[in-house]
Amino acid sequence: MGGTNIAAAVVDPCGSVQSRVSLPTPRGASAQAVASAMSRAALDALNAGGYTLSDIESVGVGSPGTVDPAQGLIRRWYKMGFENVPITALLARTLPKPIFLENDANCAALGEYAAGAGRDVRSLVAITLGTGVGGGAVLDGSIYTGFNHAGMEPGHMAVAHGGRLCACGRRGCLEAYASASALITRAKEVLGLEQADGKTAFLEAEHGNPLAAQVVEEYISYLACGIVNLVNLFQPELVCLGGGVAQQGERLLTPIREILNRENYARGLPQRTRLVQAALGTDAGIIGAALLPFYTKPQ
Amino acid sequence: MGGTNIAAAVVDPCGSVQSRVSLPTPRGASAQAVASAMSRAALDALNAGGYTLSDIESVGVGSPGTVDPAQGLIRRWYKMGFENVPITALLARTLPKPIFLENDANCAALGEYAAGAGRDVRSLVAITLGTGVGGGAVLDGSIYTGFNHAGMEPGHMAVAHGGRLCACGRRGCLEAYASASALITRAKEVLGLEQADGKTAFLEAEHGNPLAAQVVEEYISYLACGIVNLVNLFQPELVCLGGGVAQQGERLLTPIREILNRENYARGLPQRTRLVQAALGTDAGIIGAALLPFYTKPQ
Repeated sequence: MGGTNIAAAVVDPCGSVQSRVSLPTPRGASAQAVASAMSRAALDALNAGGYTLSDIESVGVGSPGTVDPAQGLIRRWYKMGFENVPITALLARTLPKPIFLENDANCAALGEYAAGAGRDVRSLVAITLGTGVGGGAVLDGSIYTGFNHAGMEPGHMAVAHGGRLCACGRRGCLEAYASASALITRAKEVLGLEQADGKTAFLEAEHGNPLAAQVVEEYISYLACGIVNLVNLFQPELVCLGGGVAQQGERLLTPIREILNRENYARGLPQRTRLVQAALGTDAGIIGAALLPFYTKPQ
Repeated sequence: MGGTNIAAAVVDPCGSVQSRVSLPTPRGASAQAVASAMSRAALDALNAGGYTLSDIESVGVGSPGTVDPAQGLIRRWYKMGFENVPITALLARTLPKPIFLENDANCAALGEYAAGAGRDVRSLVAITLGTGVGGGAVLDGSIYTGFNHAGMEPGHMAVAHGGRLCACGRRGCLEAYASASALITRAKEVLGLEQADGKTAFLEAEHGNPLAAQVVEEYISYLACGIVNLVNLFQPELVCLGGGVAQQGERLLTPIREILNRENYARGLPQRTRLVQAALGTDAGIIGAALLPFYTKPQ
């Protein structure tokens, strides 16, 4: 479930998508109406693959905002104005199966852990470079969420004390420097463009534009700073980068690895965190949501 | 075990110190000689309380640097020039008991969790403001260490991209702003003093010196930035501050809480991280080391 679209899929236990649909999220609608659209998307995804409800074991839901999986609540989703929405109970009427709820960034991290870039590791931090900078951690087979289920917000780790104002109200947050939005804003500012997207600065830099190269270098420098911070705290076996900007692949990863090799506090140890591109693209969240039952501790 | 002293104590299962001794760490000595001094300290602590080896169940060792508890190795302790020292095997000759090894900052976090400020919580991040900025996390009853046992180094999380050079080689690390050493350096610089200690800026500020107040405000601003970062990542039930500077108590904690209340990403939720002073002072490490057997997963 997202602010723009509701995507639903039938996923097998290995994390392969068997059938899928996507519907627009009803605008300005009640939680009830959004839940109805979600149920319809799920049932349509079953139909699309020739399945019925009896073919599935459980339903996984990935939601933006802060969720409470034990209570089946969306605690806060600012964009939709949701507060303490009992999403699990709303869905249960039309989807009579065990329903598992988790934050969407955590679902994406779990998808990569279970069936993507991290399928051979025991601990992973996943970072998504999109409109914001999202994140999730799977540590020894469990999603790490903190005691109030609001943890792992690497986008709201300040890397520049007193720096750029972030949408969250803090200054200097990683998100204000390393999101796709921040990259686009800087590309427009520095290159004097009316229009730009997340690829513009990288493309122009490759064509020899020194100002664009400077935008890219600045972007990488802040993103690497945040990644080294996460490594020095979590020392996960793997960090994977997803989202639009991560599609730059080695153009992005190689210079970050150089900084990580230099600044990782564990650089003298034989076992060091690896940094790779996420493997599942935009499917990570939907796959992770579906696989939640395998990675959820009994309450 | 520290670079200056070796402290040993007999600790009961509730975390109470029953008897103790402290010896100077042999200077420039071999690992063998340091291990001998540690054994002597442990046996002396037994004698001091009228105990014998038959009265104790196990031996806990807190070591600086990076350790490998499963192998009983100190992997790297730069200050002493130790590399892959088999400390557990060296101690086993004179202390024929199960020996548990852990990093000293992790032991301090565990001590606070088991018997100090965090004895009623399920997750805690402990930060020590000393020569450096150390840290440890106990999450749901286990010390968090990362896959290579080098995690939780909050002192080496950069909060000021491109800022002050840290001893670790990075720029802008929390340690370069929030350690007692950083506070003393700034007090000397800004107040034009030859001599200062960790209390000087706070004392002078209280006596109305505006430059000292500025040093304190700057110190608190950076420390709070680091603490908010840790909360936005870990959302632990409790953060506790130990080490010399933490003895400022509410003079330090109250302004940090104000910043945390404003910048915590979970500020809208009913469950929010509490910030308190550590309760066990310099005993936290020794108590945590002794209680390691209760919090160590079987390998």
